[in-house]
Amino acid sequence: MARPHFVITIACDDQPGIVAAITTELAAIGANIAESSQFWDRQTNHFFMRIAIETPDGVDAEAVKRALKAPVARFDMRIDINDLAHRPKIIIMVSKFDHALLHLIYQIRVGWLDAEVVAIVSNHEDSRRVAENEGIDFHYWPVTKDTKSEQEEKLLELATKSGADLVILARYMQVLSDTLSRRLYGKVINIHHSFLPSFKGAKPYHQAHERGVKLIGATAHYVTADLDEGPIIEQETERVTHAMTADDFVAAGRDIEARVLARAVKMHLESRVMLNGHKTVVFG
Amino acid sequence: MARPHFVITIACDDQPGIVAAITTELAAIGANIAESSQFWDRQTNHFFMRIAIETPDGVDAEAVKRALKAPVARFDMRIDINDLAHRPKIIIMVSKFDHALLHLIYQIRVGWLDAEVVAIVSNHEDSRRVAENEGIDFHYWPVTKDTKSEQEEKLLELATKSGADLVILARYMQVLSDTLSRRLYGKVINIHHSFLPSFKGAKPYHQAHERGVKLIGATAHYVTADLDEGPIIEQETERVTHAMTADDFVAAGRDIEARVLARAVKMHLESRVMLNGHKTVVFG
Amino acid sequence: MARPHFVITIACDDQPGIVAAITTELAAIGANIAESSQFWDRQTNHFFMRIAIETPDGVDAEAVKRALKAPVARFDMRIDINDLAHRPKIIIMVSKFDHALLHLIYQIRVGWLDAEVVAIVSNHEDSRRVAENEGIDFHYWPVTKDTKSEQEEKLLELATKSGADLVILARYMQVLSDTLSRRLYGKVINIHHSFLPSFKGAKPYHQAHERGVKLIGATAHYVTADLDEGPIIEQETERVTHAMTADDFVAAGRDIEARVLARAVKMHLESRVMLNGHKTVVFG
Amino acid sequence: MARPHFVITIACDDQPGIVAAITTELAAIGANIAESSQFWDRQTNHFFMRIAIETPDGVDAEAVKRALKAPVARFDMRIDINDLAHRPKIIIMVSKFDHALLHLIYQIRVGWLDAEVVAIVSNHEDSRRVAENEGIDFHYWPVTKDTKSEQEEKLLELATKSGADLVILARYMQVLSDTLSRRLYGKVINIHHSFLPSFKGAKPYHQAHERGVKLIGATAHYVTADLDEGPIIEQETERVTHAMTADDFVAAGRDIEARVLARAVKMHLESRVMLNGHKTVVFG
Repeated sequence: MARPHFVITIACDDQPGIVAAITTELAAIGANIAESSQFWDRQTNHFFMRIAIETPDGVDAEAVKRALKAPVARFDMRIDINDLAHRPKIIIMVSKFDHALLHLIYQIRVGWLDAEVVAIVSNHEDSRRVAENEGIDFHYWPVTKDTKSEQEEKLLELATKSGADLVILARYMQVLSDTLSRRLYGKVINIHHSFLPSFKGAKPYHQAHERGVKLIGATAHYVTADLDEGPIIEQETERVTHAMTADDFVAAGRDIEARVLARAVKMHLESRVMLNGHKTVVFG
Repeated sequence: MARPHFVITIACDDQPGIVAAITTELAAIGANIAESSQFWDRQTNHFFMRIAIETPDGVDAEAVKRALKAPVARFDMRIDINDLAHRPKIIIMVSKFDHALLHLIYQIRVGWLDAEVVAIVSNHEDSRRVAENEGIDFHYWPVTKDTKSEQEEKLLELATKSGADLVILARYMQVLSDTLSRRLYGKVINIHHSFLPSFKGAKPYHQAHERGVKLIGATAHYVTADLDEGPIIEQETERVTHAMTADDFVAAGRDIEARVLARAVKMHLESRVMLNGHKTVVFG
Repeated sequence: MARPHFVITIACDDQPGIVAAITTELAAIGANIAESSQFWDRQTNHFFMRIAIETPDGVDAEAVKRALKAPVARFDMRIDINDLAHRPKIIIMVSKFDHALLHLIYQIRVGWLDAEVVAIVSNHEDSRRVAENEGIDFHYWPVTKDTKSEQEEKLLELATKSGADLVILARYMQVLSDTLSRRLYGKVINIHHSFLPSFKGAKPYHQAHERGVKLIGATAHYVTADLDEGPIIEQETERVTHAMTADDFVAAGRDIEARVLARAVKMHLESRVMLNGHKTVVFG
Repeated sequence: MARPHFVITIACDDQPGIVAAITTELAAIGANIAESSQFWDRQTNHFFMRIAIETPDGVDAEAVKRALKAPVARFDMRIDINDLAHRPKIIIMVSKFDHALLHLIYQIRVGWLDAEVVAIVSNHEDSRRVAENEGIDFHYWPVTKDTKSEQEEKLLELATKSGADLVILARYMQVLSDTLSRRLYGKVINIHHSFLPSFKGAKPYHQAHERGVKLIGATAHYVTADLDEGPIIEQETERVTHAMTADDFVAAGRDIEARVLARAVKMHLESRVMLNGHKTVVFG
């Protein structure tokens, strides 16, 4: 079956004529629009658009780009053209808890997520066997105060060499440095095991248990230099009771973390997430 | 604050150029697109689109219609132009349980639903006081085998005279005749107190209790001649336990029915629901 | 149908023999246990129990109390015996938004909540008509810095004179004084329109919108002198999107607030909520 | 930390004195009640109880049984005493889709489920590698009309020899024979990929897609001779949209199936599920 070939995302200030300008050029090259979503943020007058198109044979990314050159210039658009023939590459970072990692690998295997895991990076040895079973490169890079910057340099190098499109912190319990957070901004997704902004920082399930909440949650967000304050992509909550211990919260939270992270990654890889200041637009 | 003035819905067979054709004409009359959604049903090759626009002063519904005349003809589109200056009129039908009715009235009062209730029709007297408190015309039309067709004639007449855009069966426990169902097709929304297609027919909560399900639900759908088989607009479920009686199910179900119906009505009134054979497209 | 006549709640330090001691005495007076729940908090070794019983004719609350006197003394229990023949009395306080109030009234009307509203108290006139329609005493007590303590005195007096079992802050936007919070501790339930502990204080939906969360929530809790820090009884969340404004959050939040509050009130009135330090045990 | 040592489940006709009789005997042997739940089905007057106890050193299952002998006889109780020192053994059956299998294995690995997988049985070779990685016996038993009864004999033999407490159909796509269903009644849990009783039989996601539902679901139930009619243990639903294909439903359903099945298995293994005619009591 023919599938959309390109996903185009566009952001600019809003004004009449944007959609007409873009879609007229697309029609001119014979592109058929398979999906289209848009959002006009009235507070800021920013306009966001995502279009998935199918093009005739011979119309490649370069041709699409050329076709859109005029409207992009006219409306001063930020534009991204994502060729669906390119399979996204991801690096997964993990510490000791591997449920989020395993869930990502499984979802890739069954095709719900379309991505290639180019490496698993960990500050512990625990996930080596999983990596080997899957035939994925495993990098054991323990982190101390002294080795942290060196390790981050290696990560950047790995990201560059492997052509990784996304770095996923799948319960990676080290805080990235400000520098790294800035350099990879919008390219690193973290799963935080609480319903942010509640329970920032360490041991959120224990904080939640101590507070006596009736729901726990998980939050997938882009990593920023400001810890646990990055733009939120996806969240979910689950009911807990007084009869559960903090450890029960941890156990109950594993599923929700794994699912929330996987959904956020899927949305990102399908170019459904756009940054809007410190918030996100998610075209579901 | 300026709000969208018109909502345009379009349905036709899919082919390249549809969006460009429409949006180019809209740009030509200075319309700004506030919201836009589309769906291409690959199984049937049907294309569905909903566009909310804001137009400059002086551009009225007639002008929008004129502007779109060419593409409508070219692509053989079904088109609807909904002027948001027109406040939709609704008739609510109810039997004895008034929770869904009360919820609709409340949601209108606080502005979440934008509609005018032109009449409440019931086969019981129970809701008269509510209607009078709200200053809404109340029609007590008891239904027997003999009076049913006569009562339906009165309903049609009322709908015509009042200019009602929508009839809502808010726990109205009479089955509409085939004839009426066909004449008002797409204009009557019913709330069924089960997660359809489970537990069609009478006493669904008791059926659900008897079966020992762990979730109960509610379904809002367009009424068709085929009972409980109409296109589904909205559904939701809620957890129940073995410790609950069938009456507890009924009580728990009231909230969910009221909310599911109100959401379906809102979606319909905002022209977010389009019929796609015996299914619906809902642009959320 | 025969229904449970008494609900007994018990709290003490845990040790073997508690349940046997209590239930043996209950069996001796011919009481049948209709429902029973218990919780042993291993962190603190506190034991909590709720038993609903049906007793033979002639066995009244005094007789139940007498029967349990020995085990209560032996295990140093806090005990409450709630006679279900006594219909609980509640005072509802409200400011301008009346959805939570209306929902409570409706749930009482249809019997899901079993309580008598002895008064509606407000610092605004808006809900007078609702109160009058329902035949409920309405007290308009505007609050300024100068009149606050006087108003709180009146509230205490009203609670005493009316024999109110519970005061419900159904979107009452005044903070109770420390003194009042302490005097009525465990007898005042508030609905906070956020998923606490996120977004304490004023305008939580606007805070949530600003932060870009993907879920909003509501929290019902007992009122303490420490604002928004009281023991949580019930919470729920609901999905929101980037396309919604802060006002849309407010609208979406109304349902969830009303439902969460009503559930918390129901749990409380059925003696299902027990205080466990700054947390609650909720026997669902 | 000390953990409950025994879980006792009891079922009998309801009458006063049951709880006292049981808990008095338990207190006499120094047992401490860690958890207790009960349910009185007023429709049938059946009484169900689950008690988790911790006993002093030297009090073993035999001693508990002996202690309860008198009340068991007096009230004509069905009783089960589950020694928590015994780790439950399970057989997992699977066809081609392995997500539910993988989820069970993972939940066992992290300790959320406490069980030993004594064998994986499949009518396909696909899961052999998973079994081998985990060091679990794998039986490839293809099923045809001719080999079905033979294969079922092997299953019974395997269950007996391995001492399996539970057989889990984790997307095993063969229907068990009436004979086998009856012999293993209450010992076989299946996951059905729909919200039963909707969409029984084959390809439920495609049926759901065809019907245009807005929620899909999964149901874990005990297997009976009556296909898809067994007592329901657990269910859950998830939102879908018009924009999703039947294949998207299948993908979205995987998570929910895996979770619903795992929860049902956990409830069963913890003796929280009791059969009540064709329904279940689930002490959550």
